[in-house]
Amino acid sequence: MNGGMTTAPLFSHSPPAVLQTVEKLRHFVKVARARGGRIALVPTMGALHDGHMELVRRGQKKAQAVIVSVFVNPAQFGPGEDYDAYPRAWDSDIEKLTAAGAQAVFAPSVSEMYPDGFTASVSIGGVAEPLEGERRPGHFNGVALVVTKMLLQTMPDVALFGEKDWQQLQVIRGVAADLNIPVEIEGVPTVRDENGLALSSRNAYLSPAQYHVAIRLNKILFSMAEKLRAGGSLQAALYGGHVEIAKAGFDSMDYLEIRDARTLRQASTKTEGLRILAAVRLGKARLIDNVGV
Amino acid sequence: MNGGMTTAPLFSHSPPAVLQTVEKLRHFVKVARARGGRIALVPTMGALHDGHMELVRRGQKKAQAVIVSVFVNPAQFGPGEDYDAYPRAWDSDIEKLTAAGAQAVFAPSVSEMYPDGFTASVSIGGVAEPLEGERRPGHFNGVALVVTKMLLQTMPDVALFGEKDWQQLQVIRGVAADLNIPVEIEGVPTVRDENGLALSSRNAYLSPAQYHVAIRLNKILFSMAEKLRAGGSLQAALYGGHVEIAKAGFDSMDYLEIRDARTLRQASTKTEGLRILAAVRLGKARLIDNVGV
Repeated sequence: MNGGMTTAPLFSHSPPAVLQTVEKLRHFVKVARARGGRIALVPTMGALHDGHMELVRRGQKKAQAVIVSVFVNPAQFGPGEDYDAYPRAWDSDIEKLTAAGAQAVFAPSVSEMYPDGFTASVSIGGVAEPLEGERRPGHFNGVALVVTKMLLQTMPDVALFGEKDWQQLQVIRGVAADLNIPVEIEGVPTVRDENGLALSSRNAYLSPAQYHVAIRLNKILFSMAEKLRAGGSLQAALYGGHVEIAKAGFDSMDYLEIRDARTLRQASTKTEGLRILAAVRLGKARLIDNVGV
Repeated sequence: MNGGMTTAPLFSHSPPAVLQTVEKLRHFVKVARARGGRIALVPTMGALHDGHMELVRRGQKKAQAVIVSVFVNPAQFGPGEDYDAYPRAWDSDIEKLTAAGAQAVFAPSVSEMYPDGFTASVSIGGVAEPLEGERRPGHFNGVALVVTKMLLQTMPDVALFGEKDWQQLQVIRGVAADLNIPVEIEGVPTVRDENGLALSSRNAYLSPAQYHVAIRLNKILFSMAEKLRAGGSLQAALYGGHVEIAKAGFDSMDYLEIRDARTLRQASTKTEGLRILAAVRLGKARLIDNVGV
């Protein structure tokens, strides 16, 4: 130790600290802050894939300690949705986080997050209302609540969220701004597999045959963006996309829209700051994706 | 300055800094923290009286910098309530805060608190539902929202609220606990005038004749508490209270209840941890008061 030529990084190459209570989380943050470190929070529902790992890597560029929360949040699942079936993969999650050098995992129980007598709710309108808001009533209230709680439990300098859940990212930005939560919200571009499929824990639901349909979704969205960039009209791009979706073999489509990227309002005449968003259903999976124009 | 035998206290005896934006508030807090100081927040709607000054004095015992917010929050007034008529008294508020040695006044505009496009809401159930919750629909949502925002704007170590608004204090404790807002919520006993009337900015609405009716309210509540402490039954105390209220000359009564002090649920058999709460109407004033048993 003394006089050695090299020093190991403070945290890396050891498994992350596993914190199961808010008290332990806050103690960890206090110690990390006392060492002068900035804190990044990466909220997840576990079943980690390389999209999550990209959030961890981005967090490491912005902070000295990256805390990854793993919590399948019942408040954001509706009746009949896949709360019970949602993939859990604790051991492999810890392996991945160890390899990535995350400093801590916050893995609270449901009763730690929502103890007996809990009654609070947080919601926003506007950006939370269309698209997913219409198809998944209450979903964004559940997201707003758990993210508000986790931000206030952790008080990170920065919190990172994937652009794959584009509307969720705008909802979280809205909640943080409206409630004056003192944190930087960082969106991270979607990570895709070699066929362009947006990584998602729910991709585990896909059979090989369904996978070959699923990979059509990103290609259709990118092709729509290409047409718009080439000067095509919103109407033509949208019509073309609908035709392609119909031919691709999905079971059904929840929506395919070209919206203002920030407000998610209709964008009938705008040509800048647009986002193409889609949700389709395929077997047990509901796939969402989005691309910028 | 140099070599002087005495040094003035860092802040006192000068008027409070007037902060009209969240940015200036946060800068003030940052500077105060950098000096090693603890921060106390006293949220008010202005028209300050000695009840507010007691909150400031308690804050000074718990922190080095006391920030008093003065903001008549439209979100907590219902349709037909007295938002427009609510007393404003900026100059005398500043005089009182100067005399009391408060370090800063946070006085945001409505648009600073609720800018265009603002859509967030915060609410809790349980303790917010009975009594004032039934008579003033949406009131506690407005309180929960503005207090959440102010706590997150300021990030104080402690925030102080009067026990005069007992149910509001329990609502705020609930919101802070459920959302994990990292702050100590301190309730401060009600300040009363020489006739026992709980100080309230709305007492300004009372004519001299109405004042002589208004001062009956606290005497009736204290007399009920006395009967309970002497072994009287809840039912007898409550009946006696109702009779006295009816004789006192109020225009009407919204409620007179003996409740669990923390949950505000019915307390039909309990004899400890009780609170007697009442709301009555008198001219333009709606008077509330409460006492412990």
